[in-house]
Amino acid sequence: MQAELTEMLRRRGFLWPSFEIYGGVSGFYDFGPLGSLLRDNIIKKWKDLYIREEGYLQLETPTLVPFEVLKASGHVDHFTDLMGECRSCGESFRMSELMKEKGIEIEGIPKEEVEKLVKEKGIRCQRCGGELVLSDFNIMFSTSIGPGSSKRAGFMRPETAQQIFIAFRRLFRYARGKLPLGVVTVGKGYRNEISPRQGVIRLREFTMAEAEVFFDPENPRPPEFQKVENEKLRLLRANGETVEITAGEAVRNGMVCNEMMAYQLSLAKRFLLSLGLREDLRFREQKPGERAHYSSETWDLEVLTQQFGWVEVAGIAYRTDYDLSRHSSFSGVDLTVTVDGRKFFPHVLEPSFGIDRILYCVLEHSYTSDGRRQLLKLKPDLAPIQVGVFPLMPKEGLPQKAQEIYQVLRKHFSVMYDESGSIGRRYLRADEIGVPYCVTVDYQTLQDGSVTIRDRDTKRQVRVHRELIQVLSGLLSGELKFEDAGTPFSSKEEEKEEREECEDENSERVRSRV
Amino acid sequence: MQAELTEMLRRRGFLWPSFEIYGGVSGFYDFGPLGSLLRDNIIKKWKDLYIREEGYLQLETPTLVPFEVLKASGHVDHFTDLMGECRSCGESFRMSELMKEKGIEIEGIPKEEVEKLVKEKGIRCQRCGGELVLSDFNIMFSTSIGPGSSKRAGFMRPETAQQIFIAFRRLFRYARGKLPLGVVTVGKGYRNEISPRQGVIRLREFTMAEAEVFFDPENPRPPEFQKVENEKLRLLRANGETVEITAGEAVRNGMVCNEMMAYQLSLAKRFLLSLGLREDLRFREQKPGERAHYSSETWDLEVLTQQFGWVEVAGIAYRTDYDLSRHSSFSGVDLTVTVDGRKFFPHVLEPSFGIDRILYCVLEHSYTSDGRRQLLKLKPDLAPIQVGVFPLMPKEGLPQKAQEIYQVLRKHFSVMYDESGSIGRRYLRADEIGVPYCVTVDYQTLQDGSVTIRDRDTKRQVRVHRELIQVLSGLLSGELKFEDAGTPFSSKEEEKEEREECEDENSERVRSRV
Repeated sequence: MQAELTEMLRRRGFLWPSFEIYGGVSGFYDFGPLGSLLRDNIIKKWKDLYIREEGYLQLETPTLVPFEVLKASGHVDHFTDLMGECRSCGESFRMSELMKEKGIEIEGIPKEEVEKLVKEKGIRCQRCGGELVLSDFNIMFSTSIGPGSSKRAGFMRPETAQQIFIAFRRLFRYARGKLPLGVVTVGKGYRNEISPRQGVIRLREFTMAEAEVFFDPENPRPPEFQKVENEKLRLLRANGETVEITAGEAVRNGMVCNEMMAYQLSLAKRFLLSLGLREDLRFREQKPGERAHYSSETWDLEVLTQQFGWVEVAGIAYRTDYDLSRHSSFSGVDLTVTVDGRKFFPHVLEPSFGIDRILYCVLEHSYTSDGRRQLLKLKPDLAPIQVGVFPLMPKEGLPQKAQEIYQVLRKHFSVMYDESGSIGRRYLRADEIGVPYCVTVDYQTLQDGSVTIRDRDTKRQVRVHRELIQVLSGLLSGELKFEDAGTPFSSKEEEKEEREECEDENSERVRSRV
Repeated sequence: MQAELTEMLRRRGFLWPSFEIYGGVSGFYDFGPLGSLLRDNIIKKWKDLYIREEGYLQLETPTLVPFEVLKASGHVDHFTDLMGECRSCGESFRMSELMKEKGIEIEGIPKEEVEKLVKEKGIRCQRCGGELVLSDFNIMFSTSIGPGSSKRAGFMRPETAQQIFIAFRRLFRYARGKLPLGVVTVGKGYRNEISPRQGVIRLREFTMAEAEVFFDPENPRPPEFQKVENEKLRLLRANGETVEITAGEAVRNGMVCNEMMAYQLSLAKRFLLSLGLREDLRFREQKPGERAHYSSETWDLEVLTQQFGWVEVAGIAYRTDYDLSRHSSFSGVDLTVTVDGRKFFPHVLEPSFGIDRILYCVLEHSYTSDGRRQLLKLKPDLAPIQVGVFPLMPKEGLPQKAQEIYQVLRKHFSVMYDESGSIGRRYLRADEIGVPYCVTVDYQTLQDGSVTIRDRDTKRQVRVHRELIQVLSGLLSGELKFEDAGTPFSSKEEEKEEREECEDENSERVRSRV
């Protein structure tokens, strides 16, 4: 099934390798016409939750950042991966991956000890067998800003967080000095991965959605904590133990550091489930050696996939006052606040989501195939194309009428028009890319204006006499049930056609594989 | 008024200088909580028009691009600005600007001649009077991709267009081989400007919305041309003449190269007017020496502003088959198509919008002030905050009731809650940031659930007994007229308060200036 999905995503315009005609560059992907719309819809849902519903502020900042900022944040000195470069052929390897393939976990182990291990175990270049030279490779992309002798060093940001920290004073004033204060950025992040190989799971340029939640460390309970108190969380603790526990209990027994952390874990889970993912997810606690230099406790939100196993799609890190205090001391600008007569650096809890990985998980979890019919069960508010409009036949005035309807609907929805091939084949093509509702214009439409609507997941059809925009709005928002949209309709001919097309479509797919 | 607007945009969280605590870097801006939401709304409207209504495909691509792509496109060799660097102090100047300040236009003049002019006119470093050394400075940010000896050269993209061209084969197949074919990308572009000084008008990192429209050069008339045929265009031609002319006439008399160009000019105008801009706009034809290396005809869409005069917010360029043929020959991959038995490179018309500049123009054109009351007349679908919810007084159960309403509304709209200061002051604060409707909870609300709604532009109020979500949806979409939303309501006390607050607010603003 996995190969089938990968092939479909490429063929139907979800994911394409970037720079393909120049041989491609690993770690970069294009989101095609359907993939890019799905990505927009996921981002919109994230913003709806964090900005509109939770009331977090949004900050949009440059992706290019001067040296000073990332020196202060510790990235210049610590944002490295251990690299093994072959002395003979020059090939580079990410040591943590190379060693993992040999069954050795080196996360958190100092370079000198890894060097010993490499010698002991006789680990050499995978390409030519040459000797590996180890070094700490900083995975930021570097550049310079400005011309000539006035130029200064800069980097493409490895995370969006830092620019929220350095704008903290303005943000805090905007929020009229209230804590907790949540601030989000959605945008590109950049990491010059040593040898990325896992499709959109490890990209060199990726889309992050990050929130930095500033709070008073003496009062880490968010005002709305009771909303999530009984939310069940599945925790894989650093000690290897897995527990199912409510958010409230997890705080009380010390498994998570405070209520703000438990709240953020619950919110992250709620977001993922709202995308239609199966409950195959867990929070994995990072081990001390594994955590980023700024974090005192981090939970990775992982989703189970067929292709990649457990995939980390979000990390929720307790950054304490690390960043604000570092920027205070490096910039000389006081970033403390005064609350109830106490002067302190707010602490920071950071949920950080990888949108590309989430997009992949949504696709995999939505995809089903019985070997004949492929179906993408995307939620209607995520589907790149919400409505298909088809004339039953490409003749006798049906295309003209269908075009008329199409032109009206596209002012309100994301709509496709298709008149090529049999109606059964068109339904199948629509199912494959997850179009939730297909509107068909038939001979009766020419008489009384009614159309049929087909439901993707059940293949059932209704004939609809009511105002089409209202009906579709209701169906897409979930406020109208499909069976209430019109009168049941079935066409033996169409069903037969659809069955037959399953066969044809499959053979065509094999031919057109690219 | 200009200074007042600039101060308001900073104070209220629209635009902030980036990296401020580290002294800032010119050419970079943060979009604060309100600015970033406005930016999102502008992008959404652009996508609604080009993707949903026009049916153009979307492609989302990396911003980091390998050398080969930009070598083929001509950017490595030609994407330069003439720079003057001071031999004594090292300061750099963009020569076209420096010379313009002296009244000399050098656009399109070869470097050697500019050197002569500099000597003749005795133009020297503006800082120290030193001698200027001229060179062509490539304004792409360069970096490298990958580690160690396997690294390759790359750049931050100067435009989004190239990645659409190199993915053309996949896009054309997706569109089942139909022309014209429109493809859009919205995302960051990067130009290492020599000395950017005009706020968000000349940024080193900016947001572009570009469409590449591929068409058959023997058939450049888009199927829907008649829709725009009678659209009036104001053209400032390369010969200096200004004409008001319909799109159809402009093609017939040869002022614009073809119907596709005229169609794109009309569409661009329609987009800007949909943002609520005044009709202070014109299309300025670029002179031959001024055009980019890939273009045979370019029209700049300019908007008149108080602060910067005419500002170019979009460029519509006829790129011919330049890009596809270059990438064909550099990559060795055939990018021609076959239509009606003819094999050819499609030609490309490119409308390219600068979102940051458009955002600035929207703000300036929406802003009015009588010295006392400041008002941002943003269209309801652009307003960062759509609804304000206020308890009349912060006591006797009013805040609780208002909070209840706020919690419900924020599931549907972008809402702010405010209980601080007099109601008059809160209205003024909401007007200043363009909140179209304010809902006030008063003592009658506690009795019968009704609220008052205030209209930003007229300051009129109605008392509303109907379902609030529906009423607000109707008002915001324009489907419901304000006078039909409820019964007229006025409170002499509130009006008096609002008048008085104008005074106070002004004096407070002066104090809090940052």
